[in-house]
Amino acid sequence: MYNPTKPYTKQIIELIKETWDTPFVSVKNGIILKKFAFPEACSSDGIGTKGIFHWRCRSFRNAVLDALAMNLNDLVLLRARPYKLQNHILIPKEDNEAIIEIISKLSDECKKRNIAITGGETSIHDNIIGMDISITADGFVEMPKVNKFEFGDVLIGIKSNGLHSNGFTKVREIFGDEFKDEFIEPTLIYSDIILDVNKNYDIHGMMHITGGAFSKLKPLLKNTDVFIKREHKLKPQKIFFDIYSKGVSSEEMYSTFNCGVGFILGVPKRSAYGILSDILRVGFKADIIGEIVPGEGNIKIESSFDEKIIIL
Amino acid sequence: MYNPTKPYTKQIIELIKETWDTPFVSVKNGIILKKFAFPEACSSDGIGTKGIFHWRCRSFRNAVLDALAMNLNDLVLLRARPYKLQNHILIPKEDNEAIIEIISKLSDECKKRNIAITGGETSIHDNIIGMDISITADGFVEMPKVNKFEFGDVLIGIKSNGLHSNGFTKVREIFGDEFKDEFIEPTLIYSDIILDVNKNYDIHGMMHITGGAFSKLKPLLKNTDVFIKREHKLKPQKIFFDIYSKGVSSEEMYSTFNCGVGFILGVPKRSAYGILSDILRVGFKADIIGEIVPGEGNIKIESSFDEKIIIL
Repeated sequence: MYNPTKPYTKQIIELIKETWDTPFVSVKNGIILKKFAFPEACSSDGIGTKGIFHWRCRSFRNAVLDALAMNLNDLVLLRARPYKLQNHILIPKEDNEAIIEIISKLSDECKKRNIAITGGETSIHDNIIGMDISITADGFVEMPKVNKFEFGDVLIGIKSNGLHSNGFTKVREIFGDEFKDEFIEPTLIYSDIILDVNKNYDIHGMMHITGGAFSKLKPLLKNTDVFIKREHKLKPQKIFFDIYSKGVSSEEMYSTFNCGVGFILGVPKRSAYGILSDILRVGFKADIIGEIVPGEGNIKIESSFDEKIIIL
Repeated sequence: MYNPTKPYTKQIIELIKETWDTPFVSVKNGIILKKFAFPEACSSDGIGTKGIFHWRCRSFRNAVLDALAMNLNDLVLLRARPYKLQNHILIPKEDNEAIIEIISKLSDECKKRNIAITGGETSIHDNIIGMDISITADGFVEMPKVNKFEFGDVLIGIKSNGLHSNGFTKVREIFGDEFKDEFIEPTLIYSDIILDVNKNYDIHGMMHITGGAFSKLKPLLKNTDVFIKREHKLKPQKIFFDIYSKGVSSEEMYSTFNCGVGFILGVPKRSAYGILSDILRVGFKADIIGEIVPGEGNIKIESSFDEKIIIL
């Protein structure tokens, strides 16, 4: 729990209180009353070593977006609408301004989405370089559905915002002390539009492209392969070409980084253009990037970095 | 979510699966079905910089007990029975053995208590010295009750196991590179016995003595003071006298460390001996350590370290 003896705790409580009455829950004296009776799903994730750069640049809003995105984009794979979350903030030294800024941005984002911030913890860890924000978010699932691609599915990719929050250990290995603005760009939150699409269309399978990148698609296959073609509008951003040019292989690129594609949906051919236009309408860049073909559970990608066809 | 591309993830899933069918929930394909309809409460906490020592000594079971204790002992303040949790494990480098050991011990502890481990995350943070285990635990509350001391309450203290999981930044400041076995002793989990006592008796107020130590009692007061007497059986352990002897004042001792008392209950005089004997029966050391007197919200403690009366 937020340490009641810390000077900023009163302010934290004031900020999170603004999220305590939603269409889904009401929170009072630490007790959470739910206004629904659906099955639930839960996600935990943090921002990893990207927190080194957010702390250095004090890009706290982006850090919050990263932490939220990592969880909401995972929850939506289970078709779960988030209704509450807890946060755990690790910073290397006391910094009231940082803590209040983080909670305040988090509260803003949660209010937009009817997510109650039911509590959390701020820890001062002088054994960490940089910061971490870890979130555990709960959602409810009105209509549970298995997350699997089907033969014949069209793959819709939604463009990423660059590196997002993965592969930063590799990034730091490659760039050493060099800093690039791209290191602190926030992860895009896809869950709002996906929840909308899920209401109107039958999504067979979907994946948030994070740690493990395109190899995360494997568990969604059954007697099928993923085929991702070279010719589509979601070209890797410049930062990925920078990384590739430092001697990282195509295989490693596609199994470590999103390479421009932050989220992938597998949908029946007949609904592909309807879904695509819904996604484009709210401002994301998206395109049809491939399809599900008969196979043995492999991911085949025509690399955008060279002439190779990668198999993961 | 646990990264599906990591080699140990299959083993993690096997271990946590053993917790997925309890009297309170059933978990299948990431979907949590609840078998109750009570209000809920939620707690998030980690082991702080104590993780430096646990990592060095590979005392993973103790680290798990620390993380669990920090959350279950907080949840019980809201009279919440834990039914599920998520974990977030931060380690400084890939170490499959460590991860499996941690999840395995956590699974053992959860099975004992009918807590489902619904998921989590393992992150490799090469920017951290040592490890952290952070847990977010949910509980249900059959009978919500305000947590306040009342005038005339008798204070029952339950003995701690030494430092528990707080004040480690101070500990490291004082002892430098010196290591003591006491640094890795696990925090005691009081919640099981407290939930039992709460069924049979009227507990007015209670507190887990962690960060902020005895000053955490303040929010439980209204026109009253806490008075803790010197003469009781819960003397501070040797480690606290070691710290005091390094020049830490009595005031700082009682506002940073539990000084031998890990949990405090404020109960009506008539039930004090019944509760005390229930607590002693399950193997804890406990004693009546003070009372609630009229006042203005102060904590008065007859110091065990010197002749002073501390006021917090």
